[in-house]
Amino acid sequence: MAVDMKAVNAMILDNMQSEVPLIPHLASYLIAAGGKRIRPLLTLSCTALFDGDMTRAHRLAAAVEFIHTATLLHDDVVDDSEERRGKKSANVVFGNEASVLVGDFLFSRAFQLMVADGNLDVLRILSTASAIIAEGEVLQLSVQNNLDTSMDDYLRVIEGKTASLFAAACEVGPVIAGQNAETVQAIRDYGMNLGLAFQIIDDVLDYNAEREKLGKTVGDDFREGKMTAPVLFAIQKANKEELEFWARTLGDKNQQDGDFETAQTLIAKHDAISQGMKLAQEYGDKAIQNLNSLPDRELKSTLQDLISFTINRQY
Amino acid sequence: MAVDMKAVNAMILDNMQSEVPLIPHLASYLIAAGGKRIRPLLTLSCTALFDGDMTRAHRLAAAVEFIHTATLLHDDVVDDSEERRGKKSANVVFGNEASVLVGDFLFSRAFQLMVADGNLDVLRILSTASAIIAEGEVLQLSVQNNLDTSMDDYLRVIEGKTASLFAAACEVGPVIAGQNAETVQAIRDYGMNLGLAFQIIDDVLDYNAEREKLGKTVGDDFREGKMTAPVLFAIQKANKEELEFWARTLGDKNQQDGDFETAQTLIAKHDAISQGMKLAQEYGDKAIQNLNSLPDRELKSTLQDLISFTINRQY
Repeated sequence: MAVDMKAVNAMILDNMQSEVPLIPHLASYLIAAGGKRIRPLLTLSCTALFDGDMTRAHRLAAAVEFIHTATLLHDDVVDDSEERRGKKSANVVFGNEASVLVGDFLFSRAFQLMVADGNLDVLRILSTASAIIAEGEVLQLSVQNNLDTSMDDYLRVIEGKTASLFAAACEVGPVIAGQNAETVQAIRDYGMNLGLAFQIIDDVLDYNAEREKLGKTVGDDFREGKMTAPVLFAIQKANKEELEFWARTLGDKNQQDGDFETAQTLIAKHDAISQGMKLAQEYGDKAIQNLNSLPDRELKSTLQDLISFTINRQY
Repeated sequence: MAVDMKAVNAMILDNMQSEVPLIPHLASYLIAAGGKRIRPLLTLSCTALFDGDMTRAHRLAAAVEFIHTATLLHDDVVDDSEERRGKKSANVVFGNEASVLVGDFLFSRAFQLMVADGNLDVLRILSTASAIIAEGEVLQLSVQNNLDTSMDDYLRVIEGKTASLFAAACEVGPVIAGQNAETVQAIRDYGMNLGLAFQIIDDVLDYNAEREKLGKTVGDDFREGKMTAPVLFAIQKANKEELEFWARTLGDKNQQDGDFETAQTLIAKHDAISQGMKLAQEYGDKAIQNLNSLPDRELKSTLQDLISFTINRQY
């Protein structure tokens, strides 16, 4: 899909222009830093799979990436992040104010792109996804630092904040290609399950020592007291002393030097990384099943490959 | 329009519900505090003026108010505000994080309401307005603390951050009532000019001593170094010593006790309040002219009254 991704990138660059120079300046800082572009790739692949109109897919893939970029900008403000995609994050370089407002701009621009496409179903799918993302983020904030968070709470959070946009990015494809409701649902479910697997792996990697060796940031979730899969699995098997450790570091956010290393040790002790990987694999398997009902096409293997890439990635 | 405003309020309450309790909790804190509800009133009046479908107008008026509420939540984070509508602002009570995310939720919900209405022109009008609002806010951030800001820069900022949503709120009415392009443009221009007058008065009131006596907050713009009409008029006539005062307090944000009172004195000395009022009146006059081309209807007087209310209000 290299040619199509190039068209999407051009569409992204075009549409982040503004007469207010700070907007393209900040947006290009983040967008030029790269990122996996997995969401636009999903829109492209799920359109091409059904011989849909790729010009429309380019525009809608850009809209999806803008929604994602807006949430990244706002997330970094909310989490007080210092790094993103291996660079200082936009809030550090340009300030929280600019990050909030440029996020709002990109979000509005995403809707302008969808309006230009003119399909109300697409607008419904992506406006609903946007509301659900915000709900997921607020829920995450509500359960942050709460040791009583259940695995179900966690799955609700990541379904909202991550998987819903994966699902929507995929769903747009068969919708603009005029597929029937059953096919649309199968593709949507594929995206949802892929998104869940993706976020679980993301959360596992944040405690991964190997990743640290690659120079990537780890420990952000720990510092913020996020109740993610590896922590939840470790807490399920924690003894009294370990529970006190989690209560102090995550519940009370009272952290000292060496605490993150202790957290990594406890997570390793209780096999919580492998349990997280296993959970991700379960959603990956479901995603494969979702694809089974679809006609055999060359592009189907791309969607299958995305599942294994998602689960086996080290970054 | 009391019955219709009641229907809009019910629509607002209904649509800020969520399974994540913090969302209605925070949203109702701000929305229940009141506010002038001038934007939804514009959508209602400009629909009723042309015998448009009021059920549709209720929904779209709620969408307009959601967009406005989302920008208020984000503005208060950006400005580090402490008060809004006579209460502690949401960012103080619930934190910046929640304000950013609930703003995102309300913004998405606004688009869901528009999608439910199903008119692509309305979606185009309001998504474009949303992008322009964000551009106006970023521009404001860019010229903040800049003594070289021109009156044109200022007008561009307030056209973006305020007048564009007034214009859009009005335009929606004749559009859903199926009016011709000329009528739509006249109503849109009315909203734009009214919005400019509204924001100029807002900016004047922020230096108004009478308002202070009513227990309202003044001086926010001064503390943030915003380059608004009263300051720009005072700077135009400032002597060397006064220029140094403005450079220190607004340019360098180096403010001491008594500086705001000095600013008020300088603004009074140079008649900058009356000049601001006069500028607002000019836009009010233009708004009246925009209405002249329209058929004489009872409701037209409501739109005329809104102009004098906007210019003569003390709060």
